[in-house]
Amino acid sequence: MTVPHVDDVHPAWLPPEAFRALGARRVLVLADASEVAETVRAEVADACARHGGAVAAPGEPYDLVLALTSDGSLPAAAQAVKGPEPGAEGFLLARSGGVTVVLADQPAGLLYGFFAVVRLGEAAFEGDRPAETHRPALARRMLDHWDNIGVHPVMGQVERGYSGGSIFWHDGVLHEDLTRVRAYARLLAATGVNAVAVNNVNVHATEARLLTDRLGEVAALAAEFRAYGIRVHLSVTFASPIVLGGLETANPVEEDVRAWWARTTERVYETIPDFGGYVVKADSEGQPGPFAYGRDHADGANMLADALAPHGGVVHWRAFVYNHRQDWRDRKTDRARAAHDHFSPLDGRFRDNAILQVKYGPIDFQTREPISPVIAAMPATKLAVELQVTQEYTGQQRHVCYLAPMWSEVLGFRFWGPGERAVADVTTSGGLVAVSNVGDDPYWTGHPLAQANLYAFGRLAWNPGLDPAAILDEWIGLTFPKGGEGLRETLHGMMDGSWRTYERYTAPLGVGFMVRPGHHYGPDVDGYEYTPWGTYHFADRDGVGVDRTRSTGTGYTGQYPAPWSQVYESRAECPDELLLFFHHVPYEHVLQSGTTVIQHIYDTHFAGAEEAAEIRALWAKLEGDDVVDPALYARVRERLDEQVRSAEEWRDQINTYFFRKSGVPDAHGRTIH
Amino acid sequence: MTVPHVDDVHPAWLPPEAFRALGARRVLVLADASEVAETVRAEVADACARHGGAVAAPGEPYDLVLALTSDGSLPAAAQAVKGPEPGAEGFLLARSGGVTVVLADQPAGLLYGFFAVVRLGEAAFEGDRPAETHRPALARRMLDHWDNIGVHPVMGQVERGYSGGSIFWHDGVLHEDLTRVRAYARLLAATGVNAVAVNNVNVHATEARLLTDRLGEVAALAAEFRAYGIRVHLSVTFASPIVLGGLETANPVEEDVRAWWARTTERVYETIPDFGGYVVKADSEGQPGPFAYGRDHADGANMLADALAPHGGVVHWRAFVYNHRQDWRDRKTDRARAAHDHFSPLDGRFRDNAILQVKYGPIDFQTREPISPVIAAMPATKLAVELQVTQEYTGQQRHVCYLAPMWSEVLGFRFWGPGERAVADVTTSGGLVAVSNVGDDPYWTGHPLAQANLYAFGRLAWNPGLDPAAILDEWIGLTFPKGGEGLRETLHGMMDGSWRTYERYTAPLGVGFMVRPGHHYGPDVDGYEYTPWGTYHFADRDGVGVDRTRSTGTGYTGQYPAPWSQVYESRAECPDELLLFFHHVPYEHVLQSGTTVIQHIYDTHFAGAEEAAEIRALWAKLEGDDVVDPALYARVRERLDEQVRSAEEWRDQINTYFFRKSGVPDAHGRTIH
Repeated sequence: MTVPHVDDVHPAWLPPEAFRALGARRVLVLADASEVAETVRAEVADACARHGGAVAAPGEPYDLVLALTSDGSLPAAAQAVKGPEPGAEGFLLARSGGVTVVLADQPAGLLYGFFAVVRLGEAAFEGDRPAETHRPALARRMLDHWDNIGVHPVMGQVERGYSGGSIFWHDGVLHEDLTRVRAYARLLAATGVNAVAVNNVNVHATEARLLTDRLGEVAALAAEFRAYGIRVHLSVTFASPIVLGGLETANPVEEDVRAWWARTTERVYETIPDFGGYVVKADSEGQPGPFAYGRDHADGANMLADALAPHGGVVHWRAFVYNHRQDWRDRKTDRARAAHDHFSPLDGRFRDNAILQVKYGPIDFQTREPISPVIAAMPATKLAVELQVTQEYTGQQRHVCYLAPMWSEVLGFRFWGPGERAVADVTTSGGLVAVSNVGDDPYWTGHPLAQANLYAFGRLAWNPGLDPAAILDEWIGLTFPKGGEGLRETLHGMMDGSWRTYERYTAPLGVGFMVRPGHHYGPDVDGYEYTPWGTYHFADRDGVGVDRTRSTGTGYTGQYPAPWSQVYESRAECPDELLLFFHHVPYEHVLQSGTTVIQHIYDTHFAGAEEAAEIRALWAKLEGDDVVDPALYARVRERLDEQVRSAEEWRDQINTYFFRKSGVPDAHGRTIH
Repeated sequence: MTVPHVDDVHPAWLPPEAFRALGARRVLVLADASEVAETVRAEVADACARHGGAVAAPGEPYDLVLALTSDGSLPAAAQAVKGPEPGAEGFLLARSGGVTVVLADQPAGLLYGFFAVVRLGEAAFEGDRPAETHRPALARRMLDHWDNIGVHPVMGQVERGYSGGSIFWHDGVLHEDLTRVRAYARLLAATGVNAVAVNNVNVHATEARLLTDRLGEVAALAAEFRAYGIRVHLSVTFASPIVLGGLETANPVEEDVRAWWARTTERVYETIPDFGGYVVKADSEGQPGPFAYGRDHADGANMLADALAPHGGVVHWRAFVYNHRQDWRDRKTDRARAAHDHFSPLDGRFRDNAILQVKYGPIDFQTREPISPVIAAMPATKLAVELQVTQEYTGQQRHVCYLAPMWSEVLGFRFWGPGERAVADVTTSGGLVAVSNVGDDPYWTGHPLAQANLYAFGRLAWNPGLDPAAILDEWIGLTFPKGGEGLRETLHGMMDGSWRTYERYTAPLGVGFMVRPGHHYGPDVDGYEYTPWGTYHFADRDGVGVDRTRSTGTGYTGQYPAPWSQVYESRAECPDELLLFFHHVPYEHVLQSGTTVIQHIYDTHFAGAEEAAEIRALWAKLEGDDVVDPALYARVRERLDEQVRSAEEWRDQINTYFFRKSGVPDAHGRTIH
């Protein structure tokens, strides 16, 4: 094992300088011969070689010890550390007598402990530190890649990818050199991620074969991820028994179908013993599923769960099921209701190794949505919440949009009111999943500052209680080690509020989906208004919004438990930022903020575009500064120019659209075209 | 020469039965050994072999003589026929003493005379017929193919093609068997078409090479068209000297650029001695052009004209030049003005063999546009009017939309008022050009009834004074020889008013462009409203339409001569069907028809959708009838189902959009969603 360093690719939050504090020390590693433990040893050796420290041999003095609790030669300093058991992935961190101690029950915990020391930097070696046990709050912290082997002529290689091609496949085959995959695994491990699904949930013909005759490619990827404690998962098509197995059906209750899956899965585990499991998008946007056979989604998921169970695998079964051939004239059907309608009756029927993967909102990764009521409705089901690190609807990595504040709100949302369990509590045994924003771009994420979203995802998945602003500062400190307080303030100023800025200049008050159809970038207020996609705003000359109340609308509010079923039902109590998601209101309706809906639209759009310009102005101050690499400076600058242009386009289109509809002039007389 | 008959491809208006009257006669052909004369002989022999007539040898009795006036052995019957000289492409037709006579000065005229006799059927052989001279009104009657060699992943092989792939190229190479191309040439010749441009005006890298190393493919196509009197033209890129010639510039005044074009064109004529010339889209929608060198379009066109002149070729230079990166917020720029602004100052500067090719309307082939004022503004320039036979904006060959009534209006439009010259008179020396609707579909045109548009184009280009309804009946009679009066009435009922029906259920009152961006099918009222394409309707809660007046708008009305400059300027006098093209009016504005704009929108959309349903009902009566082939019946039926669905979608979206904006209910209380 050698630590992967890739030339010409930005080191993200693991530049050599990030290892200076640790690498300058004498470090003792006491662990087994496992692959992950070897990784820890290699990391320590790499850091020490670079920064003048030393790998301590047993008996030699040391400043830091990284040890498995099971190690027979635990020194006194380590034995003295007491705390709750770290468990499978956790670690104990302490410091006394000039020695920093990391103790873990398993090699994975040792690896996470190592990166915790890296994050702390010099602080890890200062003063005393009482023993703290760090354990991940969520069992699985997973990134889904929507990578394809082939390149779609319009969608590109990575569906909803904005960072170039896939880091896994190129020209129809696996990259010959997978060092970059290992470097990616290293970046993810440093944030706490422990699972990656390598291919698109829309499984096309070529990618379907990753399950069978192209399984070797998955195995090669698994070998890279394994070193950093990450298990590989695979998106499979529900129609696999037909398209790969030559069967006439994929009916989940047919014996030969079940046998095919069992056999196929067994072969997967023969090749990849620590294979994570399957990801399935079924009966959704044209993908095949159990509905074709009159079966429900528990039947479908359990069939795969049964095939995986003997090997310790799980199936992630997506709850993103709705009618995408809706008639816009049909006002009764409500796409927001679909997942709850489909899945809540199935609670209790899913196997223990079937995880229902639920998008955080009921529609589709909008800038602002209420939290999906499915998450509250299935106490007897393992649930994973799905986020998008890739900025499909949040600026496509051309806009700065730091998403951790949104995710923090999602994870902290309490369906049953204050003091009750939060989303993060409900999903501990399932986990947190997100669509990755990484591609073969030299900065990994297209927009260099979008790296912060990838970083924050892992950190929040490990500990949903972390403060997004603190995560941001942590990321800044690691990524820009030459920057001081000034740079931190600049970046913090640019990024911390950028999600709310983006919300301000795009679709107002939770209404969502005012984007250009297809690619989803830029404004088009009516772009989806008369389409089959079920994403409408119903704006007319008098008002705007979707009536999802029980009293007069689609009844969606009734999918929430109290108190939210009442709060959302009430036009007066519904939070401003979600008003148009739940209610159709007149333009002159007065928000809780005291302003009218129409004036709010104008005010936020003028403000949002101004804030985008301010973000650019902050960055411009760094020009020529030696704390930021000139190429990175230029890349960000170019993206900011586009963000400012786009924000003005959003501002003007949204304002003009609603001015033309409402006829209400801006109270401040600003230009509306 | 053998007459091309292609299995498995519909014979369109030349089924064997169409030749019955002629083929049952004794026919004498007196002509030279030219290729076109050989075609006439072959056609006569083919028809007579099929229908029991005979090719008469000199001295034998005959019912029909087809003779060149120069023929030394003209019989008395032919010598007795007197009339104005037929000229290069015309013919004299007469009948007396039981003999029908066709006399022509040139073989092409003989061919057109032959097809005239075919069209007449038995009537050609009844009673006496005083001598009539038939000459084409327009010098060039041309179809432009927007065919590519390659297949675009989204646009397909034929840009704006709705009839499958190209009949010229397949899998990146010329079709091995070009019989179908000859059959196409034959169909066109029967309508009077004498020129075909074989490739897309957007010239991509592969197709650019048709001018040089792939010229052999053009020659092979020319050989097929030549037999039927059709000259082949080629779309070329203005950047050819750079992309093909390796020069550093395409500046039209540079000597080496001019020399490159001269040399290249000379080689073209060495290979294809009757080559027609070039078609150029320059400085338009991203195509290169003279603007890059600070030169104007006369400079550009004349350079190519000079290269072509020694060989008798022409350049068709398209006037479709506008800023396609407009800002929707800019209310001063008016795309409708662009062609006139660019080209009218250049009048008199174009060479005699440069033909300025002007789309019939100022925007882009909409269902209803005013006639382009460029056509009136360039008396010292040869002009060709460009139409679309392909139904880009008129239903994409999924809707029945017989376009000849529109074209007839275009050709008959009198810029200078009643009694003055019409468009057809202004363009005699230039011609009429249209984008073809033909592909490798078994019915040629996707929708079998769309064949009528191809037929009518040729007939109107030959004689713009023909009645579109009569052309339709002529087409019905030829195409459905087994059908009697009942079928004629049914098809006439379905087709004759179908353009106006289409207009009724789509964009109202000339406003245009309320289509889905990109593919241009189906409604999307705001689809182009905030785009850079310059196609806006400015609908707000009070009114709709584009103010193009001189008094308060963009001044476009001033591009017309009187009386239209006044008529269009006046809200009261402007024809209803163009009102929103020229004026922004309140929804309650009363039209000349006596109804309000908003009620007109509702009424026409309900009526249009009903008419679409009636068109389908008419066709349904033919089910099982043996006058229509069952496969053709089914194809049309399937398209009509889509037309009815689409018409309802148009009706509902347009009505809902304007109801939401205006708040005015339908006076008749019909359902608006």
